[in-house]
Amino acid sequence: MRRPRVVIVGAGFGGLACARRLAGRPVDVVLIDRHNYHLFTPLLYQVATALLNPSDIAYPVRAVFRGTRNVRVMLDEVVGADLESRVVKLRSAPRSFLSYDYLVLACGSTNHFFGMDQLAATAFPLKDLSEGMALRNHVLACFEKAAQLDDPEARKPWMTFVLVGGGPTGVELAGAFSELIRLVLVKDFPELDMKQVRIVLVEARDRVLPTFPAELGQDAKKRLERRQIEVRLGTRLERVEGDEVLLSGGERIVTKTLVWAAGVRPAALVEALGLPATKSGRVAVDQALRVQGHDRVFAIGDIAAVPYGDGEMPMLSAPAIQEGRFVADAILKLERGLDPGRFRYRDKGIMATIGRNAAVAQLGKLRFKGFVGWIMWLVVHLYFIIGFRNRISVLLEWAWDYFRYDRPIRLIERAKQKEGAP
Amino acid sequence: MRRPRVVIVGAGFGGLACARRLAGRPVDVVLIDRHNYHLFTPLLYQVATALLNPSDIAYPVRAVFRGTRNVRVMLDEVVGADLESRVVKLRSAPRSFLSYDYLVLACGSTNHFFGMDQLAATAFPLKDLSEGMALRNHVLACFEKAAQLDDPEARKPWMTFVLVGGGPTGVELAGAFSELIRLVLVKDFPELDMKQVRIVLVEARDRVLPTFPAELGQDAKKRLERRQIEVRLGTRLERVEGDEVLLSGGERIVTKTLVWAAGVRPAALVEALGLPATKSGRVAVDQALRVQGHDRVFAIGDIAAVPYGDGEMPMLSAPAIQEGRFVADAILKLERGLDPGRFRYRDKGIMATIGRNAAVAQLGKLRFKGFVGWIMWLVVHLYFIIGFRNRISVLLEWAWDYFRYDRPIRLIERAKQKEGAP
Repeated sequence: MRRPRVVIVGAGFGGLACARRLAGRPVDVVLIDRHNYHLFTPLLYQVATALLNPSDIAYPVRAVFRGTRNVRVMLDEVVGADLESRVVKLRSAPRSFLSYDYLVLACGSTNHFFGMDQLAATAFPLKDLSEGMALRNHVLACFEKAAQLDDPEARKPWMTFVLVGGGPTGVELAGAFSELIRLVLVKDFPELDMKQVRIVLVEARDRVLPTFPAELGQDAKKRLERRQIEVRLGTRLERVEGDEVLLSGGERIVTKTLVWAAGVRPAALVEALGLPATKSGRVAVDQALRVQGHDRVFAIGDIAAVPYGDGEMPMLSAPAIQEGRFVADAILKLERGLDPGRFRYRDKGIMATIGRNAAVAQLGKLRFKGFVGWIMWLVVHLYFIIGFRNRISVLLEWAWDYFRYDRPIRLIERAKQKEGAP
Repeated sequence: MRRPRVVIVGAGFGGLACARRLAGRPVDVVLIDRHNYHLFTPLLYQVATALLNPSDIAYPVRAVFRGTRNVRVMLDEVVGADLESRVVKLRSAPRSFLSYDYLVLACGSTNHFFGMDQLAATAFPLKDLSEGMALRNHVLACFEKAAQLDDPEARKPWMTFVLVGGGPTGVELAGAFSELIRLVLVKDFPELDMKQVRIVLVEARDRVLPTFPAELGQDAKKRLERRQIEVRLGTRLERVEGDEVLLSGGERIVTKTLVWAAGVRPAALVEALGLPATKSGRVAVDQALRVQGHDRVFAIGDIAAVPYGDGEMPMLSAPAIQEGRFVADAILKLERGLDPGRFRYRDKGIMATIGRNAAVAQLGKLRFKGFVGWIMWLVVHLYFIIGFRNRISVLLEWAWDYFRYDRPIRLIERAKQKEGAP
C-alpha cells in the first residue's frame, strides 16, 4: 500500500517539529527549505555581535534526519502549487511537479519595511543567517573606518547605531552591541574615543518589550539606559535621507548603521498561492490549523493566523513548535479516519536578555528580573539548541565571554561567489 | 626624540612575526592588512571541507596587539609608494601619505592562472578565507544539486571534483574531500550513490609533493589512491571548455568543480612599486633582506626572492616567520648603528597530511609516514595556531571528527552585502 506523502515547506521551528514528529511513522515526508540548515533564530543576534559562530546556531537539516528513512530533505524553494491537483512546483524543476497527500506550509515570515523601500537597500534586518553575518561584518568595518579618519566629527556617523524596534530582537541586540563595543572593541581600538559611541533604540509604543508585562518592560528600559543605550519611546522612524535618520519627534541622527527590527510579514508564498488571509496577511486556518477551504493543506508558525486571545498567535518559536507537532498528529489521525482535534497553545512564557546578568522573563504567573531571569534565559536557550555538540560549543563560548569579557569572532569575512554557482 | 616608524605591509606569517618582535621595542609600528584577521592558511583546507569554523583559523590582528602601545593596526591597503620620499599611499586616503623610516613589504602571493583567464572566473582557488568558504559552500551545494536530479548521468558532473596541483594544498584537500564525502556526506545523502563520486588530482610533475623526498611522495600517492582518489601524474590542465576540463594526456572530464592549487605569484604591489624582481617575479633582496637599491625597504615571505640552495626560498610559513623576526632585529640593529647581519634559514622540515592517521613529514634527516607522521602533523599545527582559545577549539573539533566521523560545519551560507558598505 502506498504511504501518504506529507510535503513540509520550511525547516524552521514549525516545519522541523512537524517532520521530527512524523519520523518513523507510516507516512513519507518531504521537507523542503531554501537553506541547508535549521536556524536557531533566538541567538542570531549573538552571531551579529561576534560572540557565536554561525555553525553554533545553524544545524544541517540533513543531519537531523540521518538514518530516518521516511524523511527526505530537499534544498529547494516552493514557487507555486496547484491545490486542486495536490502538487507543488519547485524552483529547481519549474516544469515538473511534486505531488502531496498533505501539505504543511511552514515558510515563516520575511522583513516588512512598510513601504519604505530605501530601507530594503540600506537598513540591516536580522531575520536570517546571511543578515546576521552582514551586520557583524558591517559593525566591525564601521570601527575600522572610524579608525582611518583623523577628524573626530567625521567619525561620529560610523560610531552611531540606530536600532528601530523595541521588541526582543531590538532589545537583545542593543544590549549585545553595547557589550561588544564597550567591553571588547574598546580594547581593540585604543585610537578611538568610545565615549563617542551612540546606541539609540527607537520604539513606536510607550515601552520596550510591548508584549511583556509593563513592569518587565520598565525594568528592561532601566537596564538598557544603565548600559548607555538611548531609548526613544513613542517614537517612529519617519524616513531616511542618505545617512540621516529622521525620527517622529523631529530628531535627526546621522548614522551609517540603521538596524531594522520593527516589522515582519508572512512569507510571500501566501499571496503567490492565493490563500485566504486575515488582515495581518497570515493564512486563515480552522481549529485544526487547516487552511480554510483546503482540507489537506495546513499552515503553521509565523505564516498562520491562529486565533489567540483577542488577536492572533504571536510570531514566536514556541507556538510554531507546538503547531508543528499538532499537525503531525492531526495527519496521522486523519489517516486513521479520526478527527484531527483542535489546536490548543500551552503558553510556557516569554523572555528576553539585556546582557550580562540581566534578563526579564514571564513564566505563567511568575515574573523574573535581573540575574535570576538571566540564568533562566541561559538554561532555556541552551536546552532548545539542536545537537549535543552545538550545546557544548555555545556553553563554552558563553563561559569564555563571561569570564574573559571577550567576543572572539570579530571577523570581517565574506564568501566569494562564483559565476553559475548552484 | 621621535621614534622611528616601521610600516609593515601585510599581517600574514612574515608581517605578524615582524610586528610581534618589535612590540615593546623603541620603534613605532604600523601594521597594515586588507583583512582584519591573520589567517592560519595551513588549515584553510579544513574550513573548505566543513571541519573547522573560519574563526578557528582567523585571528583578529587587533587582538594580537591588545595592550601593545607601540603597534598600531590598520585595516587598509597600500596602493602605492614614493620610496625616495619614504611614504606609502593607502586605499582609504588616496590623497594623503603615510611616512615611514623603515618599510617592510610582507604582502604575500596571489593566485596565478598562467594566462588561462577563464580559470579566474570559474575555478576555485584556496588562498584566502573567502575562497575557502566559497569552496565549502560550492561542494555542499553540488551534492544538493545532484540530489535534485533524477538522472544518474546528469548527476555525475556535480559529483566529480578535479584538483589541479599536487603540492601540499592539493594533496591535503583531496584527502579531506574524500573524507568529507565518503565518511560524512554519504550519511546525509542516502538518495545518492556515492560510488559515482570521482576525485581527480592532477600534477604536472612525476610525483605528488614534488618538494618532498621521492619516497614520501610515493607513499602519499599510495595513500591517496587507497582513498579512491585518482592521481594523474605528468599531466597538465590544457584548457577548460564550459564544464569540460581537458588534460594534457587527452583525457576530458566533465565537472562542476575545478580547484586550482597549481600556482601563485607575488602580490601585484611588486609591479606597482616598480621594485627590482627576479625571473619568478619576487623582489630581489640583499643578504639582510633589503630591497636592492632601497636600504630602508625590506621584503619578506612569499614576495621576497631570498636565495636558497640552487633557487629561491620556498613560499612557506616557516621562512616567512624567520624572515620577519630577522628584519625586526635588523631594524633595531640599524637604529643602533650596527650591521644588520645576514639572514640564514633554519630548515625545520615540511609535512603534509593525507587524512585520518596518515601524513608524511621530513624533519632534518628524519622521515615519517603514516600514523606517526600524522601525530606529528597534528602537534605541530596545533602548536602554531595563534591563541589559546583557537587551539582548544581546533583540538576539540579534530577529536569530534576523529571519533564521530563527522565534519559538522556543513553550512551553505553567504553574507549579504549592502550598498555603500565600508
